[in-house]
Amino acid sequence: MPSVDPLRNVRVVLCDTSHPGNIGASARALKTMGLGHLHLVRPQRFPDPEAVWRAARAADVLGDAQVHATLDDALAGVAFSIACSARTREIAVPALDCRHAVARAVEVARTQPVAFVFGNETSGLTTEDVNKCKLLACIPANPVYSSLNLAAAVQIFAYELRIAAGEPLGREPPGVLATHEDVEGFYAHLEQVMCESGFMNPEHPRRLMPRLRRLFARTGLEPEEVNILRGILKALTRPSGK
Amino acid sequence: MPSVDPLRNVRVVLCDTSHPGNIGASARALKTMGLGHLHLVRPQRFPDPEAVWRAARAADVLGDAQVHATLDDALAGVAFSIACSARTREIAVPALDCRHAVARAVEVARTQPVAFVFGNETSGLTTEDVNKCKLLACIPANPVYSSLNLAAAVQIFAYELRIAAGEPLGREPPGVLATHEDVEGFYAHLEQVMCESGFMNPEHPRRLMPRLRRLFARTGLEPEEVNILRGILKALTRPSGK
Repeated sequence: MPSVDPLRNVRVVLCDTSHPGNIGASARALKTMGLGHLHLVRPQRFPDPEAVWRAARAADVLGDAQVHATLDDALAGVAFSIACSARTREIAVPALDCRHAVARAVEVARTQPVAFVFGNETSGLTTEDVNKCKLLACIPANPVYSSLNLAAAVQIFAYELRIAAGEPLGREPPGVLATHEDVEGFYAHLEQVMCESGFMNPEHPRRLMPRLRRLFARTGLEPEEVNILRGILKALTRPSGK
Repeated sequence: MPSVDPLRNVRVVLCDTSHPGNIGASARALKTMGLGHLHLVRPQRFPDPEAVWRAARAADVLGDAQVHATLDDALAGVAFSIACSARTREIAVPALDCRHAVARAVEVARTQPVAFVFGNETSGLTTEDVNKCKLLACIPANPVYSSLNLAAAVQIFAYELRIAAGEPLGREPPGVLATHEDVEGFYAHLEQVMCESGFMNPEHPRRLMPRLRRLFARTGLEPEEVNILRGILKALTRPSGK
């Protein structure tokens, strides 16, 4: 089978949702992460203006949501389904934390449809529904209060999906660094004005220069920054103060 | 300094929040991840029953929230502050994705207070507020629609914090960092002497302060370093040059 963008092969299934605001907020959570397939099993109030309001500019994802009578209908054609639940219970499926569960799901989603299944806001997923899935995924949480809002949980899974499906996380590329001789020129200039102003006594330098070198070595000075710093030193040591 | 549970050293600062529901939902997001310090700068409606409803069983976190008139007040005593924003713009601080930003923040939070700062739902953080922080952190998102709900963004940062805080120490612990107010005091001093010396024209500041903020934000100034830098400025501006 040809490999596709794995996010296009992911559906999110909300079962027995009580509050339409959570449906709208879930649609928004999906769209912000580049996901688009929302499935609703027996929503208690849908469609509803509260869902539209909370969806913000994800009205397209909300409008395309498919409503089903059963979880089996919502999982038709799905190759790998993950029950998303904080509950530990009498379950028949293996459990993983959400990050590792998502990593496994993304591999499948490169060729086949996968589903993430969420339960009711208060009662969660039924044991029967969890056991229809291949994996139970839990979000690490405060043991004293582990009950995330439904759309907040959807947001975390969607976020992990986007990261797992995408390129490795990049750090900001470093700026162009000043050359050795430019940085040394700045240090020499700084030392000179510190001595001339009386701030540093060359007889008793108190480790001032090593400390300042450490500060600027951490930052990694750029050429324009060296120019600015030397410009300040020059301006401050101009005879007339102007 | 003794090492503590880093989550206890983390505060979340919400600036100019329009909707009280987002304040309540943020309190819930924090508590589910074991965080507890919520700070509000100029909330438009607070306290409000909508906040209580959305907080669910995080009423304690909501009730303990501190309200401030300015971001500087909310950052008092903070050693490392992270602006959380999707925006790319004319900023003076380095940028990282949220996972790497959180990893760095957790190392500091083992000994000193850190803050994650979020802006208004529609307009985000002002450039001025971003530039008061040491780092800009972005959640990877759909380029077509990257606007996460405020509380959903708080949930992702809180989730990454919980995971990062549970991992063993990876890097050399950072030095003790200067507080927000000490660093801001240095910037104010630097700007003053640059203006007085004629190096910077307040009418045409040429982005000098943002560039210098970026340089020193990268380095992470320590208390003694702030003293040295201010000592140099003082010595160079003494009337007689001695």
